[in-house]
Amino acid sequence: MLTNDELAKWDRENFMHPSTNLGQFARGEGSQRIITGGDGVHITDRDGNRLLDGFAGLYCVNVGYGRTEIADAIARQAHELAYYHAYAGHGSEASITLAKMVMDRAPDHMARVYFGLGGSDANETNVKLIWYYNNIRGLPRKKKIISRWRGYHGSGLMTGSLTGLELFHKKFDLPLAQVIHTEAPYYFRRKDAELSEEDFSAHCAAELEKLIQREGADTIAAFIGEPVLGTGGIVPPPKGYWDAIQQVLTRHDILLVADEVVTGFGRLGSMFGSAHYGLKPDLITIAKGLTSAYAPLSGSIVGQRMWDVLMQGTDEYGVLGHGWTYSAHPIGAAAGIANLNLIDSLGLVENAGTVGAYLQKQMKNAIGDHANVGEVRGEGMLCAAELVKDRDSRSFFDPSEGIGGKVVAAMLRRGVIARAMPQGDIVGLAPPLCLTTAEADTIVGVTAESLREVCG
Amino acid sequence: MLTNDELAKWDRENFMHPSTNLGQFARGEGSQRIITGGDGVHITDRDGNRLLDGFAGLYCVNVGYGRTEIADAIARQAHELAYYHAYAGHGSEASITLAKMVMDRAPDHMARVYFGLGGSDANETNVKLIWYYNNIRGLPRKKKIISRWRGYHGSGLMTGSLTGLELFHKKFDLPLAQVIHTEAPYYFRRKDAELSEEDFSAHCAAELEKLIQREGADTIAAFIGEPVLGTGGIVPPPKGYWDAIQQVLTRHDILLVADEVVTGFGRLGSMFGSAHYGLKPDLITIAKGLTSAYAPLSGSIVGQRMWDVLMQGTDEYGVLGHGWTYSAHPIGAAAGIANLNLIDSLGLVENAGTVGAYLQKQMKNAIGDHANVGEVRGEGMLCAAELVKDRDSRSFFDPSEGIGGKVVAAMLRRGVIARAMPQGDIVGLAPPLCLTTAEADTIVGVTAESLREVCG
Ligand SMILES: Cc1ncc(COP(=O)(O)O)c(C=O)c1O
Ligand SMILES: Cc1ncc(COP(=O)(O)O)c(C=O)c1O
Repeated sequence: MLTNDELAKWDRENFMHPSTNLGQFARGEGSQRIITGGDGVHITDRDGNRLLDGFAGLYCVNVGYGRTEIADAIARQAHELAYYHAYAGHGSEASITLAKMVMDRAPDHMARVYFGLGGSDANETNVKLIWYYNNIRGLPRKKKIISRWRGYHGSGLMTGSLTGLELFHKKFDLPLAQVIHTEAPYYFRRKDAELSEEDFSAHCAAELEKLIQREGADTIAAFIGEPVLGTGGIVPPPKGYWDAIQQVLTRHDILLVADEVVTGFGRLGSMFGSAHYGLKPDLITIAKGLTSAYAPLSGSIVGQRMWDVLMQGTDEYGVLGHGWTYSAHPIGAAAGIANLNLIDSLGLVENAGTVGAYLQKQMKNAIGDHANVGEVRGEGMLCAAELVKDRDSRSFFDPSEGIGGKVVAAMLRRGVIARAMPQGDIVGLAPPLCLTTAEADTIVGVTAESLREVCG
Repeated sequence: MLTNDELAKWDRENFMHPSTNLGQFARGEGSQRIITGGDGVHITDRDGNRLLDGFAGLYCVNVGYGRTEIADAIARQAHELAYYHAYAGHGSEASITLAKMVMDRAPDHMARVYFGLGGSDANETNVKLIWYYNNIRGLPRKKKIISRWRGYHGSGLMTGSLTGLELFHKKFDLPLAQVIHTEAPYYFRRKDAELSEEDFSAHCAAELEKLIQREGADTIAAFIGEPVLGTGGIVPPPKGYWDAIQQVLTRHDILLVADEVVTGFGRLGSMFGSAHYGLKPDLITIAKGLTSAYAPLSGSIVGQRMWDVLMQGTDEYGVLGHGWTYSAHPIGAAAGIANLNLIDSLGLVENAGTVGAYLQKQMKNAIGDHANVGEVRGEGMLCAAELVKDRDSRSFFDPSEGIGGKVVAAMLRRGVIARAMPQGDIVGLAPPLCLTTAEADTIVGVTAESLREVCG
């Protein structure tokens, strides 16, 4: 057994962590935590701390930690056949079965699922397919992708371009030229305080229309959006938003990509966010909840009208030149099957709806009237408290004060993990879908105490 | 238990396979194979066929199939802690231990390893880091990446651009503008038959120099290459190539990325291709052999001179905005540890060198003199036979004849999997590193018979 100190040293000297301050971490100034296990909504670290994970890892451990059903399925698959590739019509029983299970759950008009590794590469696949689609259709100029400010769609070069957050653009020369951004459907941050939700949705649709007109509809291939804005602030859409947006897209022959990496497989209290909000996407991005992160697996679910063109394309030009070595990895597929079965047998989609609603209600009761709480919002098992300097004027704290981060740190000291969302002081919660009302109460209590500690 | 027929139907109706002719497959015309297990260099399919996998999946199952040591490690990790993220200084014992093991094996001047999922996303990370690096250095124009024709670096938008093969560009609008290609170090296909290997290397370096001068060295950030060209034809570099190339790069302050997704962890008979050929890379891409594909995991190993600038960057601008949810996934890390230990304990790096040399020698003996064999080449456990219409004039078959594919199909009927490499008639072999001389003899025998069946 390694001692903590040795491990900690190896960590600082060898391991480049994602989304980390590299210099601080290497010098031993940044925080470091080595996780050793978990059960239900709790994780334990090597120093013996037990924490309630109110963010389910990175909103991905949807069934909770320590599920032996999934671990057993992974173990079985690892012993039977850890890997074979899926190129050129190869497959495993696990990957085929999971494909069937995903398509059984997806909206009816979807035709096929392609499996990748993570959410970013699935969106990368989507953009490739979109470009191919319009080339096959003889529309080679129709290639730009519209995304929203505050959207999160990945961390790659193209997918980080789709992402509409500063941290992922600055110093990386992003966004790339093919990506343009439109207004975020962030009602709380609307400029004109007088607008109703419906009016604000109409405003967003009008902004989109203006952008399309400015660029030329014949240059715009697709629009990508999360049913509920996730990393950009956990922001459910204002009333009528998706209806209004889809009308614009239809009018201009623009594909819709629903990025359901967070919302897919139950987080909103519905199997998919697309069903939840009446979206009819051409592509659905899935990851996280597909395996509850027990093994890497993502997917691009392709709608029928795209699929028809993709088939036409391969009939005309042969093999589609796209694939990852680990596409449809059997270990991920086995994890996915066990995970989706568990979601059903434990009734987690329903639980996300009911306990999620309870969490949000109790959170509103506990802190909704606090002078520095601008809004408590959420949908299903997603909940956020947006902190403001002044409620009436909706004025924000100076970012350098890091108020959101301070509240989250105070929560961590009390044993609850929340996430300070970027570009604002937003305390984000996205617990495992198996959260109980008692655990929801704990989260609410800790949030309220921590808020008072930091803001008075 | 599902019957083959039901599974086969689910497959065709739900599953979009990578690198597949989609229309044919959906209509039941394309080939379909469902793999159920494997041991050593053999796999078995659901119809009861047992095949010798002469390509180790997609040259990735380096330790061979059915290794219980790795399966057990995966099972243990799945039960202990299947997942926690690695953002903001979090880690698991497995991911930290593997980071240490990778760095112990990497060339001395390398500083840190970042873990991703597959080879493509690792190269995506590399490009992001390269752009960041030159932004921090105050060289915002120095951003283009030079790759080689016939290089393979992934299937994404940026990584497919780095790839220098038609199939991955055509109909996808690639390569993107930031990527330019230079000549492949493909001695057999040199224009001027009189050139020696050394002269041809000098020619490649001169071509590179010309390209840099044309574009302006102040616009070129990096050069990426596989130590041995893989998917582009399994082509070891001509004598003096890497020396000559590195001199040009050094002169123009251009970073070197060694894409060791195929060559890393033993395939050439050395732990890394960089050591094998005297490369001093700034970034090393790893995947495949890191876990022998038992679970998805890739990495970007960062050299000291880049690492220093990355630390400076986060000191100046804070957290590095880059990460995948599944970066450093514990299941992949556990597989990686067990895999690297197995490579050591079984002496697979050495075996790759000795049995690989034997395979190549026997292959030369068996088919080297055949009228349609232009060249038998290879390095370590990589071997290729390039077929030609006429040896003396080095003239090629018409691609529409698909001679390479026919030979590979004939081999498959005899129970040996080889791969027809794109853009040529090239029979590619990259068996698991545990291949025995007896198994090598089988491969050689089957190759020779199949060649005679197709070409006479
Ligand atoms: C909506 C959405 N899309 C895509 C991604 C990218 O997924 P990954 O981190 O697995 O690449 C994320 C990750 O948080 C996400 O929230
Ligand atoms: C040299 C090289 N780099 C990168 C890749 C891409 O890896 P992946 O398919 O895991 O994305 C490959 C895959 O064959 C490769 O051979």
